[in-house]
Amino acid sequence: MATMRALTFDPKEGVVLKRNYPKPIRKSGEALIRIIRAGICSTDIEITKGYADFSGVLGHEFLGIVEEVDDNSSITQGQRVCGEINLPCNSCKICSVGGIQKRNHCPKRTVLGIVNKDGTFADYITLPVDNLYPVPVEISDERAVFAEPLAAAFRIIEQGLINEDSVVAVIGDGKLGLLIAEVISIQKSKGLTVFGRHMEKLKLLPQGIKTVLADKKIIIPEDQYDVVVEATGNPEGLKMAISMTRPMGVVVMKSSYAMGSEFNTFPIVVKEIQIIGSRCGNFQMALDAMKTNKICPKKLITKCYSFEEAVDAMEHAMTKGTMKIQLEFD
Amino acid sequence: MATMRALTFDPKEGVVLKRNYPKPIRKSGEALIRIIRAGICSTDIEITKGYADFSGVLGHEFLGIVEEVDDNSSITQGQRVCGEINLPCNSCKICSVGGIQKRNHCPKRTVLGIVNKDGTFADYITLPVDNLYPVPVEISDERAVFAEPLAAAFRIIEQGLINEDSVVAVIGDGKLGLLIAEVISIQKSKGLTVFGRHMEKLKLLPQGIKTVLADKKIIIPEDQYDVVVEATGNPEGLKMAISMTRPMGVVVMKSSYAMGSEFNTFPIVVKEIQIIGSRCGNFQMALDAMKTNKICPKKLITKCYSFEEAVDAMEHAMTKGTMKIQLEFD
Repeated sequence: MATMRALTFDPKEGVVLKRNYPKPIRKSGEALIRIIRAGICSTDIEITKGYADFSGVLGHEFLGIVEEVDDNSSITQGQRVCGEINLPCNSCKICSVGGIQKRNHCPKRTVLGIVNKDGTFADYITLPVDNLYPVPVEISDERAVFAEPLAAAFRIIEQGLINEDSVVAVIGDGKLGLLIAEVISIQKSKGLTVFGRHMEKLKLLPQGIKTVLADKKIIIPEDQYDVVVEATGNPEGLKMAISMTRPMGVVVMKSSYAMGSEFNTFPIVVKEIQIIGSRCGNFQMALDAMKTNKICPKKLITKCYSFEEAVDAMEHAMTKGTMKIQLEFD
Repeated sequence: MATMRALTFDPKEGVVLKRNYPKPIRKSGEALIRIIRAGICSTDIEITKGYADFSGVLGHEFLGIVEEVDDNSSITQGQRVCGEINLPCNSCKICSVGGIQKRNHCPKRTVLGIVNKDGTFADYITLPVDNLYPVPVEISDERAVFAEPLAAAFRIIEQGLINEDSVVAVIGDGKLGLLIAEVISIQKSKGLTVFGRHMEKLKLLPQGIKTVLADKKIIIPEDQYDVVVEATGNPEGLKMAISMTRPMGVVVMKSSYAMGSEFNTFPIVVKEIQIIGSRCGNFQMALDAMKTNKICPKKLITKCYSFEEAVDAMEHAMTKGTMKIQLEFD
C-alpha cells in the first residue's frame, strides 16, 4: 500500500504528523492532487477542540497539482488547482435542485477535512473534478491558497445582500473579517466601517477603508447600518451586530461557533431585522479578484512553515494575534 | 376637568378600573375617538407582568367612533374607525424616509397602550388622523376589532416572504398563529401546515388547512419547509423553526418575548437560513380581507365582557386556553 505524510487529528491522539498514512486512491470522476501549499483556518483549530466530531487528516485550504485524472476531463494532468470543499452526494432531493443548494447544502455531503473526508494537510488528496478550479498563472502559490476563504467572503456578494448605496459595518478583524472588508470595499459601497479589537490587524486593510478600534471605551453606534457583517467568532458579536443594525436592516452571520449563544431575540422582531447565515462561496469570483490584483491577501500571512514542521505550525496558529499560517510541501 | 372610565396598569397598583381618569384632549391633526369595542391582546397581559415598563391605560386593539376632528380632515365626525398603534415623531431621519420605516420604526415613536401613550381600554382615546382607517359597513363591530392583529398577520405578505410555490409551516396555535395561517392560506400557498399544541384551537381553522398536533410524541420534520413562521410566544419555538427550515429557507419571527433565549446559532450559518422579524402590518389588507369575507376572525372570540367587568375580563384573558376576549363599551 502506498503511503504519504499526513497531519491527523483524533480525540485520543491529538494532532500527529504521520509518515505512513495511506495515500488516497482516485475514483472515476475524481482527480488525485499533490498538495503544494495549504493554509490553516480557525476551523482546523476548532476541530482540534472537538468541533464537528472529526477524526482524520486536517485541512481544507490548498493549492495543488493534478497528478492523475480521467482522460477527456475538463481538468488535465499537471494543472495547478484549488477546490471547493463540499462534496455533494449527487443523488438527493437538494442535489437535484442543483446550483448553490447542491454546492453548499446537500445533507449527505462530506466536507474536506471537516466531515468524513480526509483533508489537505497531507501529500495527496482526491477531489471530484467538478470541485476543481484551474489557478491562473498570475496568482502566486501563497495567494492561491486564499481562494477558499476569499470565496467565503464573496458569498455575501453572491447572496445579493449589499448594493452600492449600502452603509455597511464589518465587525471582527480576524482573517475572514478583513477579507470580507476588502471584498465589500471593491463593490464601491459608499460607507464601510470595520470594527476590530486589534489596531495591528486593522492596519492590514488597504488605506481608504474606515476602521474603528472597538476597545472598552467605544460607544456602539446603535441603529446606524444598513448591513452589519458579524465575523467576530464569538457570541457577543451577534448582540453587537443586532444593536448596530437599523430597523429593517440586515445582519450577516459569518462566524459559526459550536456553543449556544444566549441573547435577546426581542430586537429582531421589534426592528424587523433580517439575520442571514452566509457560508461557502464562489471560487471564480475569488480567483478573478486575485488575478486582477483587486485583492491581494498575501499581507495576511503571518508565517509559512515547511510541512515537516506542521505540528509547530498548528501551535503557532493557535497563538493569539496570529493571522494566516501556511504550510509549504516539498 | 372632564373625566372618563379607564382600565389602567401601574406596577404598584396593578390593574385598576378608574372612573375619574382624565379624558384626553385632542390636538390639531388628531381625532378624539369614543371607543365602542376593544380586544385584549397577549401584549396587554405581558405589560401587566412588567413588559415595556408601561404605566397608564392599557389596550391597543379597538373600534371607535370619531367624535371630534379638524374640519376638512380625511376622516369625518361620526365615522367608525380602527387605527394603527404606532405614532411616529414626524421629524427624525427615519420618519423622513417615510413608508413602512416611518409607520413602524421611528425610534422616538409612542405606541398606543404600550409606549408612553394611553391605550384603548377607556371611553376615549386620541390618535392622529393619519393612523385611522374608516371601517366598511360590511364589517361588524366584533370583527373590526381584529383589524390590528390581522394586519400584523398580513405583514408577512407585505414583506414578500411567501409566494405561491412556498411550502410553509406555521408553529403556534394562539390567536396570532391562527390568523397568520388563514392569511397564508388565502395566498394559495401550495403547502401549508399548522403545528400547535391544542387540538381545540387547531379546530378553529377553516377546513382544508393541514394541522399537526405537536404533542410530546411528535417527530419534528427537519429541513422540510421553505418558510417557517414562529408564532408560539416562547423561545423553544425559534429552535423548532430553525430545525424545520430547509437550507437557504426563511424563518419569520412573529412572537416577541421579553426574556433572552439561549439557542445554538450554528445552524443559521451552516444552513444559510434567513431569520426575519415581522411586526405591525397593513390595515387596508386586513380590512379588505374581512370586507370580502375571505377571513372571518369572529370564531376566535372566547367571550365578550361589558367594560364595567374589565378587571374580570383581563383575568379571563390570562387563563390558559382562552382565545380572544373583547370589551364592549356602553
